Amino acid sequence: MNALARLGMVSESPSENQTMTTVAATAVSSEPAKDYFVERDGQKFAGMHLLIDLWGAKNLDSPALIDETLCAGALASGATILHSHFHHFSPNGGVSGVVVLAESHISIHTWPERDFAALDVFMCGACDPYKVVPFLQAAFGPSTIDIDEQRRGLLKP
Amino acid sequence: MNALARLGMVSESPSENQTMTTVAATAVSSEPAKDYFVERDGQKFAGMHLLIDLWGAKNLDSPALIDETLCAGALASGATILHSHFHHFSPNGGVSGVVVLAESHISIHTWPERDFAALDVFMCGACDPYKVVPFLQAAFGPSTIDIDEQRRGLLKP
Repeated sequence: MNALARLGMVSESPSENQTMTTVAATAVSSEPAKDYFVERDGQKFAGMHLLIDLWGAKNLDSPALIDETLCAGALASGATILHSHFHHFSPNGGVSGVVVLAESHISIHTWPERDFAALDVFMCGACDPYKVVPFLQAAFGPSTIDIDEQRRGLLKP
Repeated sequence: MNALARLGMVSESPSENQTMTTVAATAVSSEPAKDYFVERDGQKFAGMHLLIDLWGAKNLDSPALIDETLCAGALASGATILHSHFHHFSPNGGVSGVVVLAESHISIHTWPERDFAALDVFMCGACDPYKVVPFLQAAFGPSTIDIDEQRRGLLKP
């Protein structure tokens, strides 16, 4: 089964979009391999992954608003948008979707009948995933936001 | 900005694909609102979300193999595939992508230069996200798999 052809799409040729940490200039002819892991607070890891739960939220049945909100948040975080896809369900009006970034992704799944949405915001490189949060507050007006931060690919000291 | 038109796609009309818990038959004319949260082990929540880190893994630079593996795992879990999208990066060969499901999503981001991949498998309804794991083991042969299970949208008793 080749779902690339059947359901979606795949980039045919590699791009240079992957965010990278700064590589020191070198005068020798054989450059060191690039290292795409990031360093922060003395830790080295692949990327920051926020699991965000919205409770008491509104406007969770609008794919257009959700798309606009997540893309605006992604750009504010410093990310590059590669692709987005949203699906609208019946009868509850729930929305599932994802924004694929050069620096990972943002996903959302909504349950309007419970005023609940589950998001994850995964970003590597210099992007700040917390900059998505004010856009969620403005668009969905949740009474409560729970945020769980994971550092994916954390290297052991 | 309308990224729906610019970058991706959105389902124009709601579908009936959302997985639902069983709703008891009723003889009254006004049916109760459907409840898409699931119950397991005495807990009620929106869905199971696994954060999976692969270390010492191979074949992380092949979007076709990754797509095939994630779609096979999704089907084995009992999920319905709506859409998939993968992107291939240069120069490291890393792959980013997602499979959007009627029951949420699977995402992957790979760092072949470190033999590392970060996945998340989010499934609601009766699907079992752990059934994806054997497909990851077979395709990528990791020396270590770290799995963190989150129950998203867990209702307080």
